[in-house]
Amino acid sequence: MKNLDYVLLLDCYGSLLTERQRSLLEGYYDEDLSLAELAQPLGISRQAVHDSIRRGERQLAALEEQMGIAARLKAARALFAEIRTLSDALPEPQRQQIADAAKKGLELF
Amino acid sequence: MKNLDYVLLLDCYGSLLTERQRSLLEGYYDEDLSLAELAQPLGISRQAVHDSIRRGERQLAALEEQMGIAARLKAARALFAEIRTLSDALPEPQRQQIADAAKKGLELF
Repeated sequence: MKNLDYVLLLDCYGSLLTERQRSLLEGYYDEDLSLAELAQPLGISRQAVHDSIRRGERQLAALEEQMGIAARLKAARALFAEIRTLSDALPEPQRQQIADAAKKGLELF
Repeated sequence: MKNLDYVLLLDCYGSLLTERQRSLLEGYYDEDLSLAELAQPLGISRQAVHDSIRRGERQLAALEEQMGIAARLKAARALFAEIRTLSDALPEPQRQQIADAAKKGLELF
């Protein structure tokens, strides 16, 4: 199964990877392409794509270990989601105001 | 005048700088040390410290240009601050719940 956390790591750190590696990981995680679909246009084997994706994942994990930004963005997203849920019980106009701010927060990620 | 945005950039990207460069920038921006205070223990000139800090600032700005994470963290922080302000007008227990979530959000940055 594809690990959804890599979508966030790729969003944070993708620009630090090589063009080729980023493009493979984006195809795999963001566009949900198969190894075969990624391999075919590049004229390489499924195994080569697999190895390259694993290398990219290790680089992303190492960058998160070093920088820790994805964890902060994830925590911020969870708080905006919590605030949006809490806002349902509020009277207007505060419900709308707070729900709008929480929605803008969720759209940052 | 020291540019406060570099505090945020340093927080985001400091771990990608060299140890020496990070340490100079942290002294200058986070601890508010003067060029002379930074230069003395290293046995280098104020001008050398100044040049090194400017180089570090350019690296931080280039990383933000490439990754854009500081802008997202800044926008999230502004939204948490807005939510905290809006929460003042709410009835309990929602006021407390939403103010707590916004406070946790502000502490992430």
